[in-house]
Amino acid sequence: MSFLKRRNFLKLSGLSMLPAVLPLSAAKAATSLKPLANIKNQTVSFTDDGVFYEPAEYLSKLQEINASSPIEMDFYGGGGAVAKLCEKFADLTGKPASIYMPTGTMANQLAISVLAGENTKIFVQETSHIYRDEGDAAQSVFNKRLIPVATGEAYFTLDQLKEAIDYHNKGEVFKSGIGTVAIENPVRRCDGKYVPLEEIKKISAWCRENGYKLHMDGARVFLAMAVNGVSLKEYASYFDTVYISLYKYLGAAGGAVLCGDKETIGHMEHLIKIHGGTTFSNWSNAAMALHTLDGLEERLKQANTKADELFKNLNKMPGIKISAIPGGSNIFNIEITGTHTKIFNKVLQDKYQIVTHARNGVFQIRVNETLLRQSNSVIEKAFADALKTAKA
Amino acid sequence: MSFLKRRNFLKLSGLSMLPAVLPLSAAKAATSLKPLANIKNQTVSFTDDGVFYEPAEYLSKLQEINASSPIEMDFYGGGGAVAKLCEKFADLTGKPASIYMPTGTMANQLAISVLAGENTKIFVQETSHIYRDEGDAAQSVFNKRLIPVATGEAYFTLDQLKEAIDYHNKGEVFKSGIGTVAIENPVRRCDGKYVPLEEIKKISAWCRENGYKLHMDGARVFLAMAVNGVSLKEYASYFDTVYISLYKYLGAAGGAVLCGDKETIGHMEHLIKIHGGTTFSNWSNAAMALHTLDGLEERLKQANTKADELFKNLNKMPGIKISAIPGGSNIFNIEITGTHTKIFNKVLQDKYQIVTHARNGVFQIRVNETLLRQSNSVIEKAFADALKTAKA
Amino acid sequence: MSFLKRRNFLKLSGLSMLPAVLPLSAAKAATSLKPLANIKNQTVSFTDDGVFYEPAEYLSKLQEINASSPIEMDFYGGGGAVAKLCEKFADLTGKPASIYMPTGTMANQLAISVLAGENTKIFVQETSHIYRDEGDAAQSVFNKRLIPVATGEAYFTLDQLKEAIDYHNKGEVFKSGIGTVAIENPVRRCDGKYVPLEEIKKISAWCRENGYKLHMDGARVFLAMAVNGVSLKEYASYFDTVYISLYKYLGAAGGAVLCGDKETIGHMEHLIKIHGGTTFSNWSNAAMALHTLDGLEERLKQANTKADELFKNLNKMPGIKISAIPGGSNIFNIEITGTHTKIFNKVLQDKYQIVTHARNGVFQIRVNETLLRQSNSVIEKAFADALKTAKA
Amino acid sequence: MSFLKRRNFLKLSGLSMLPAVLPLSAAKAATSLKPLANIKNQTVSFTDDGVFYEPAEYLSKLQEINASSPIEMDFYGGGGAVAKLCEKFADLTGKPASIYMPTGTMANQLAISVLAGENTKIFVQETSHIYRDEGDAAQSVFNKRLIPVATGEAYFTLDQLKEAIDYHNKGEVFKSGIGTVAIENPVRRCDGKYVPLEEIKKISAWCRENGYKLHMDGARVFLAMAVNGVSLKEYASYFDTVYISLYKYLGAAGGAVLCGDKETIGHMEHLIKIHGGTTFSNWSNAAMALHTLDGLEERLKQANTKADELFKNLNKMPGIKISAIPGGSNIFNIEITGTHTKIFNKVLQDKYQIVTHARNGVFQIRVNETLLRQSNSVIEKAFADALKTAKA
Repeated sequence: MSFLKRRNFLKLSGLSMLPAVLPLSAAKAATSLKPLANIKNQTVSFTDDGVFYEPAEYLSKLQEINASSPIEMDFYGGGGAVAKLCEKFADLTGKPASIYMPTGTMANQLAISVLAGENTKIFVQETSHIYRDEGDAAQSVFNKRLIPVATGEAYFTLDQLKEAIDYHNKGEVFKSGIGTVAIENPVRRCDGKYVPLEEIKKISAWCRENGYKLHMDGARVFLAMAVNGVSLKEYASYFDTVYISLYKYLGAAGGAVLCGDKETIGHMEHLIKIHGGTTFSNWSNAAMALHTLDGLEERLKQANTKADELFKNLNKMPGIKISAIPGGSNIFNIEITGTHTKIFNKVLQDKYQIVTHARNGVFQIRVNETLLRQSNSVIEKAFADALKTAKA
Repeated sequence: MSFLKRRNFLKLSGLSMLPAVLPLSAAKAATSLKPLANIKNQTVSFTDDGVFYEPAEYLSKLQEINASSPIEMDFYGGGGAVAKLCEKFADLTGKPASIYMPTGTMANQLAISVLAGENTKIFVQETSHIYRDEGDAAQSVFNKRLIPVATGEAYFTLDQLKEAIDYHNKGEVFKSGIGTVAIENPVRRCDGKYVPLEEIKKISAWCRENGYKLHMDGARVFLAMAVNGVSLKEYASYFDTVYISLYKYLGAAGGAVLCGDKETIGHMEHLIKIHGGTTFSNWSNAAMALHTLDGLEERLKQANTKADELFKNLNKMPGIKISAIPGGSNIFNIEITGTHTKIFNKVLQDKYQIVTHARNGVFQIRVNETLLRQSNSVIEKAFADALKTAKA
Repeated sequence: MSFLKRRNFLKLSGLSMLPAVLPLSAAKAATSLKPLANIKNQTVSFTDDGVFYEPAEYLSKLQEINASSPIEMDFYGGGGAVAKLCEKFADLTGKPASIYMPTGTMANQLAISVLAGENTKIFVQETSHIYRDEGDAAQSVFNKRLIPVATGEAYFTLDQLKEAIDYHNKGEVFKSGIGTVAIENPVRRCDGKYVPLEEIKKISAWCRENGYKLHMDGARVFLAMAVNGVSLKEYASYFDTVYISLYKYLGAAGGAVLCGDKETIGHMEHLIKIHGGTTFSNWSNAAMALHTLDGLEERLKQANTKADELFKNLNKMPGIKISAIPGGSNIFNIEITGTHTKIFNKVLQDKYQIVTHARNGVFQIRVNETLLRQSNSVIEKAFADALKTAKA
Repeated sequence: MSFLKRRNFLKLSGLSMLPAVLPLSAAKAATSLKPLANIKNQTVSFTDDGVFYEPAEYLSKLQEINASSPIEMDFYGGGGAVAKLCEKFADLTGKPASIYMPTGTMANQLAISVLAGENTKIFVQETSHIYRDEGDAAQSVFNKRLIPVATGEAYFTLDQLKEAIDYHNKGEVFKSGIGTVAIENPVRRCDGKYVPLEEIKKISAWCRENGYKLHMDGARVFLAMAVNGVSLKEYASYFDTVYISLYKYLGAAGGAVLCGDKETIGHMEHLIKIHGGTTFSNWSNAAMALHTLDGLEERLKQANTKADELFKNLNKMPGIKISAIPGGSNIFNIEITGTHTKIFNKVLQDKYQIVTHARNGVFQIRVNETLLRQSNSVIEKAFADALKTAKA
């Protein structure tokens, strides 16, 4: 789908779909970017999962990083800042090996394929990125078969997984083999809901007993960690491989990291190359992600704590109703009533550098570390002002 | 091959191999980078094909570009600076369509595969990047068969191509079909030699007559154009698709552009996606390449003219012998005799910001636009000083 | 799965599964074959879909065929009796082209892949052979993705198909394209139920409107035709390609034929070759199938009429209950009560050359042209005798 | 290529090509078969590698086989006569496992692919069936890359192999791995020349030292064995897998057997299935091959001894010159001068049931076990008569 077609898709599919598909400010930025007069950004964004930099800011941030400690170049994803980032993730996940990937799609596809070996079947959430947003890459490029489990739900239980595997084990005369079980956590297409740790533990234990490999699509795993307090190391301990995105809330312009054991990761460099993913210089992505990682969990926890209080206070205002999504991470449902939402958005953005994309009916807002840029009292005042000004 | 293994490979394969394999300063930078005190770089490098920026410079350059005209973000390779760059290349090549690619390997592989359709056979120079440096991607990922022509030579003639095609047409009972003929121009593994325009014309005419498609791996095509005066539009007119690298001398940190007709390029967005190449933000690469492109041909021609005179003068010095490579573009053979080459290099680099990698025996130097940073008289004086100081 | 493992599978999965998986007499024959003293076979088999020849009979039958009109050899599936058979099927299906295939799996896989072109998605019944019994070939060899529709049911309605296609058309951001809709008819895993003609007509009209191609897995299509009176030509008119098996009830030792338009079938010879399916001599399969085809529909109709009467009479006997499967073709449910089924089977087989595989509970019998070998009165007498002798 | 196109190919490519491409009598039979009045065939054929049965004979022969010991059916290539044949070949090759394959192409492709594992490169004779006659299957279906060695020659020496492997080991930065070395023996496209045992020993020892796997395409290996006295067990001991054809001189209508270790062969059943090669009944091929195998080596040796004497005597006749091909197996060069070759052929065939395809210039004749059907004195007399009658 071309960029323009994708834009149309967004229009057609309705705004409610949108936050699940792409970072809003990115979409906006891509079409009508204006340079900020003041690089010191005070924007509080309720529409992203992390800090999202426009070019001037991005460059300025990287220079700041470079000034405090010179960024070292990588060379086709090896050495320099990229090596440092990979070590950092190996450390955070407790995995002995890790490698830079140009995209999450490549990270996911190579992980599930290599783990599966000669086996064909890969079990995934029906709502997962691997199943819904990777263009049938598994089947058409990597010769694997995806089998969706738990239609419409954020996760499958061990029982659901067993049932799905059973169906194939029993129903097929010519067995093509069960390879990998992949779990996305948290799940983008399910309002950022995370998979309960207890279920992961049960699934992991059973899979290991039965020789099935486990991959975690942890593109946004820090968002879950900040809410449920599970460490990345603990999550990773239940999986054979873990992928984490660098651009969704780690500030980088792109890229991903895949962690796992030495043998599995050892296959990757060549596979990345032959699939055309060995990009030349990746130090800027790595440096930015490394910088953001530093203290991230703490900041996300602070943001969550601050959001709790903020939402409690906002909920006292007439015309606003914010509610947590059960099992959710950083996404909340919100409804603004009796208000011209366009005006509401405009007041917040122009007067207070607060980005919402309020519209009629229930929509969603996202908690991220930009919430720390302004005090709750300022934000509350801003909302009160916007509600008043935009009163229908 | 891991980064470290690759380093060892470089050591083992001997330095004479090295310039053909990777930009030297990149390799150096990747291991021992020190930030430049003075960003205004006066370095004249004889070891690269273009300006090669270290992180601080790179960021500074991009900010300069952004200051003069704000860089617009792309979104997964669509819109903003990337769209602008693609339009620029469509214009330069005279092709109706163009698309951003994360790597040259992906650009080459997708181009030759899509052009070939159901046909299996792809004819390439035996010395080409596609044949030698893409890890058998054609066979193992894209289900195509590469057939090398003209072993050890920079190019194949129409007669050689005909003979190769004939062998298969006549020798095979079960015909799998002849799809694409790919020509790398200029050829990295052959000291940057370019393919004579007359041969390209003949090959192109014959291929079109016979229904074979033509792809140009023009990763470094500007280097040839600056020497032989053929325009990119003319080159492109003989091919169905043309790929150009953004990082070899266009200053970008990575990326490539593929140009062609609308139908062929129309297949690419989906193929890039399913092969895991849809990188998120590419505006920095695009902005840098766009900036470098502006006036590039003129600057490269100036550098060539300047090099002619410089080399004539240097050749008058005892102990230096520089000679053109017949059919070459920006690479020259050079021999320094009666000199301690390590000292020679050190004097040039430390005292004059001139980078050579002189060693015993014949080695190679590369002309690029950094030559314009200092006057010939200064460079000549520097060489004279270095020769004298390093006298054996 | 090795032969022995497959045998174990049969044991483990219970006999009720068995008729759906493989022809019983084949399984039996494979392990304990005794040559028939009398080649003139009077056996009435209720366990197969057609006449099933053991070696001596098979050779004798072929000699008989050859005596009446000499069989002409084929050469790698071209010429001779194979060409004649292909012409016959082209004629019967009304398709301009047809080709011999070594297996139904290859016929199905190549048909759905070639029809799909660059599109990835193939929609099939969840109960179909393509989905359940071809070892994930579509995904692991042919780079296609199978999407099951109508779980557990014999067929999907147009509405179910539309819903499945809609889910993908709407839910996917990166569209990999919808290629082929395949319909198995009748459905082996659903007791031989056939797909209603009206549904096929609606699906066909809608698919053609939307540019989706249609393949019929008609491995056993004659069994449906004999019941519902739809001609092969009519069935075929709603599909782009049709595959028919040669060994399930056409008497051949193996092989299949695929019919379709010239362009689609024109791709096949090369594809069969590169997938390793170009078997050398196939005249014996072709000659046998040609022979059986002659008058087949008439004989199957006679057998059905005869079965109607026979089952009505048998149902009058105490301890026997035979009932039609709604929407079924040649398979019937039967229950024998108050009887030692082992003795029952033995009496029928040894004394009357009638093969049932009666067991406790409901099991299945199959109507095929062997029913014409003995008169109903003899068969009825045989059943009466067996029931009496085997009385519990 | 369609059957008709293939026929044209044969015409166009000239008869000298023909014997290397296909059994002549097969081609002939495919177009103009007449049933033999007398099944007891006395034909001495100089145009095939073995006994070649037309339908009536084929059926008659199988019945004879079945009469002496009932043929047991197989079931999808498992059990019965096929199991017996596989055991026979396991025994003859000394390999612990073996499996039936529908075609030699599938046997070769699956063997080289499975042996190669993740490695991409397969080294083969440039003149081999795998390289020239399998339609680029390795590249387009099995994701492997064939590298031809020893252009135009019957075999490569260890030095040539080392050089080829070295070129890739040294020349490639991104190594895709060296998997299998395949050797065809004897070589159909090289007049049946065989590979010297000493070279095989050296290659085998070196490959094992270096971890490269070895496959023998022994489609016609018995023809070499009969000449050089090397046993199949000895040949097989130098290879990891060995394929032998069932229809080239073993009389079967098709099929092949692949032998190797348990793990390698253990992969095959599933791979055959997903590539569409699991043909239903194969007992007739197996029974015929088993029958022919019985005493085959002895008969071939007798035929060779008899041919030696026969050719010596024929060479005494004016107008005939027969000469051995150095390193050849059962193929000889022959020239008939001063003779109308059409008449010559006609006399031999019609009067003496001796099939040559004599033509002007040098052509080839093949020694096979049909030579044992008539005495040398009769054959010599027949040639003398034909030469006299056909005198120019």
